[in-house]
Amino acid sequence: MDLKSLIRDIPDFPKPGILFRDITTLLRDADGLRYTIDSLTDKFQVANLKADYVVGMESRGFIIGAPLAYKLGAGFIPVRKPGKLPSSVHAVEYQLEYGMDRLEVHQDALQPGSPVLIVDDLLATGGTASATAKLVQQIGCKLIGFGFIIELRDLQGRQQLPDGVPVISLVEY
Amino acid sequence: MDLKSLIRDIPDFPKPGILFRDITTLLRDADGLRYTIDSLTDKFQVANLKADYVVGMESRGFIIGAPLAYKLGAGFIPVRKPGKLPSSVHAVEYQLEYGMDRLEVHQDALQPGSPVLIVDDLLATGGTASATAKLVQQIGCKLIGFGFIIELRDLQGRQQLPDGVPVISLVEY
Repeated sequence: MDLKSLIRDIPDFPKPGILFRDITTLLRDADGLRYTIDSLTDKFQVANLKADYVVGMESRGFIIGAPLAYKLGAGFIPVRKPGKLPSSVHAVEYQLEYGMDRLEVHQDALQPGSPVLIVDDLLATGGTASATAKLVQQIGCKLIGFGFIIELRDLQGRQQLPDGVPVISLVEY
Repeated sequence: MDLKSLIRDIPDFPKPGILFRDITTLLRDADGLRYTIDSLTDKFQVANLKADYVVGMESRGFIIGAPLAYKLGAGFIPVRKPGKLPSSVHAVEYQLEYGMDRLEVHQDALQPGSPVLIVDDLLATGGTASATAKLVQQIGCKLIGFGFIIELRDLQGRQQLPDGVPVISLVEY
């Protein structure tokens, strides 16, 4: 299936000069959604990456991560913006273009030693994914892979991710 | 399966006097996640509710809506907070306890006449669900049902939802 034909380009979003890859047109397509989740599942299974938990980042990562967790027979762990999770959290701060941002996960969500996959819709500069990787590794989890629908190769996000951890993406620009 | 045993009560979140029903402990449990999605799917199918689209509200609604759409063979449509969707939107405003809030959906996401399910993690006062229903009905879609993991009966959210549209929930408090 040609996933690119289901992904819409939006110029100048969220700001001038940025070409936004809009996956809502893919998600609304029942066949596209099914193919996306099945393909990521297959690739994780072929690579023998068996996770206890799938971690997804707020909020488009929830849309990919939850069905993947379901399909893989894993639990789903949301990583959220500050103040959204109701119980005690571990947090990680990371650099944005201007300023800092912060991600949180429940302290009792992940056990040390558990194999974990991190998934999001898009790998761009890798800021969010590498911050989430730090969070997961600080807890002592075994980070076994990353999954993305889209990878923007020019931004070299892979280089920000931990060495030796497989990175799977379905579409490259 | 006793879903209630997997849902955690958090007193005084997000503010004093509120008992928050935390589903992250359910989502992280692989069997609980699977049972939740399978049960909602079964209940929609038993009620013969065949949707072209599952609409989920930012952001916990994404965690339930995306796997349900996948399982039902439907497309997934995110309803988002203002400014998050990159293309032209329809919007609806709704009353909060103090002030107003606003939800948006892409103008080209839903076609008039399409059968649609609205899903979220929790039905409380029904503010978000009824606003989303208005949005969907203004576009001319056929709203065929609502699905929630949790329903807080005392808050009478069902009374805010359109008459005659089936409401499915898995757990009541």
